[in-house]
Amino acid sequence: MMGRIICAGLGPGDPDLLSVKSDRLIRQATRIAYFRKAGRAGQARSIVEGMLRPDVIEHPMDYPVTTEIPFDHPDYNRILAAFYDDWADRLAVLAETGDVVVLCEGDPLFYGSFMHLHSRLQRRVQVEIVPGIPGMVGCWNAADLPITWGDDVLSVLAGTLPEDELARHAAAADALVVMKTGRNLPKVRRALATAGRLADAWLVERGTMPGQRVLRLAEVEGQDCPYFAIVLVPGQGRRPEAAE
Amino acid sequence: MMGRIICAGLGPGDPDLLSVKSDRLIRQATRIAYFRKAGRAGQARSIVEGMLRPDVIEHPMDYPVTTEIPFDHPDYNRILAAFYDDWADRLAVLAETGDVVVLCEGDPLFYGSFMHLHSRLQRRVQVEIVPGIPGMVGCWNAADLPITWGDDVLSVLAGTLPEDELARHAAAADALVVMKTGRNLPKVRRALATAGRLADAWLVERGTMPGQRVLRLAEVEGQDCPYFAIVLVPGQGRRPEAAE
Repeated sequence: MMGRIICAGLGPGDPDLLSVKSDRLIRQATRIAYFRKAGRAGQARSIVEGMLRPDVIEHPMDYPVTTEIPFDHPDYNRILAAFYDDWADRLAVLAETGDVVVLCEGDPLFYGSFMHLHSRLQRRVQVEIVPGIPGMVGCWNAADLPITWGDDVLSVLAGTLPEDELARHAAAADALVVMKTGRNLPKVRRALATAGRLADAWLVERGTMPGQRVLRLAEVEGQDCPYFAIVLVPGQGRRPEAAE
Repeated sequence: MMGRIICAGLGPGDPDLLSVKSDRLIRQATRIAYFRKAGRAGQARSIVEGMLRPDVIEHPMDYPVTTEIPFDHPDYNRILAAFYDDWADRLAVLAETGDVVVLCEGDPLFYGSFMHLHSRLQRRVQVEIVPGIPGMVGCWNAADLPITWGDDVLSVLAGTLPEDELARHAAAADALVVMKTGRNLPKVRRALATAGRLADAWLVERGTMPGQRVLRLAEVEGQDCPYFAIVLVPGQGRRPEAAE
């Protein structure tokens, strides 16, 4: 029986925020796969703790490199491409004997690592993707911050961008999300200050998860923050106000 | 017993894409409320069809105006503000005797009408919001389009913006989402052509719902499209490719 590769979006971290469909697929799965940093439990696997069948077979996909090599180094590209090639081959073989559920944090098609497998599996095996609540959506809900009103423009930026690009985009949009902060936090803070947006910026650490923290970015002292941290600047757009 | 106003995000349309938490809250609810265009069943109510308790009490909140008056007309603001004031008062009274679940399509804090009630209910009653998968996320999954890679900049635009602003933002970002297309579709198409992005643009109608259609925007002939239609331009950012 030829199976499918089913990528189940996990949402922002709280298991209660999985979709009904992902929840069902994960509880029924006999074979799962998930990315993780070598030597770590892995965030995706942690989210589904307690949900799995006792006889499930697990395939951890250990990244060969995360932040040890800069992403613009030629080795980074070569090593990761070989890693994705290898796991695409392995998943294609596994699918020959039944379904495999691949766990993906957030939404799989929004900056997701699964996309690198998806492009390699197309036309080889049936792939089904179940959307999830993106991490940023979990964060603005965790912080109780309505993010966009009326015709606000929202821009989503990666903290890995050069400082001047961050500042330029931050000045042009009404609402902002900055992902991949971590060690880029001081640069992100400078760029938002340049764009005049620092006073309205919030840092959400571990949104929807245990240990969640919501801070005004201007008041954050540290030079670093957890990997699961997102900067938010809510929009202030058009809205019907009560009459004076 | 003082109750809460619980806003349950419904996601993009497929009931299987509700979060486990929203699904549970809606099935247990004894009182629900939802926005709808007067005289229509309402998209939010349609999504939960078949999930409700037989004894549930329903409070449809009929918009006094949708597109009959332009949003920059003074009456538009005045009429909608009075409508939100009125329903905030009614929900606050209802909460005095127990929970009320307010149904909201997509994610409640992302261009959601509930935000207008939320701002009016704060400090009067306990409000809890459950995030949902935004409509745009359902659409890019429905179209099987990875939307952002690496450090792609994603901008979310409203089709109601002036054409030159749409074109300027479309040229500046790597990946694009245009919401609120509808009667703005010809303008959106012209703006994307000006920005050199029309060839890569997709129109997703009724994403994740029955009757879903995915079309290349350049090939769409009509001057209009359904309300539940979103334009997507996927990013093409950094990704590790197989070696030559």
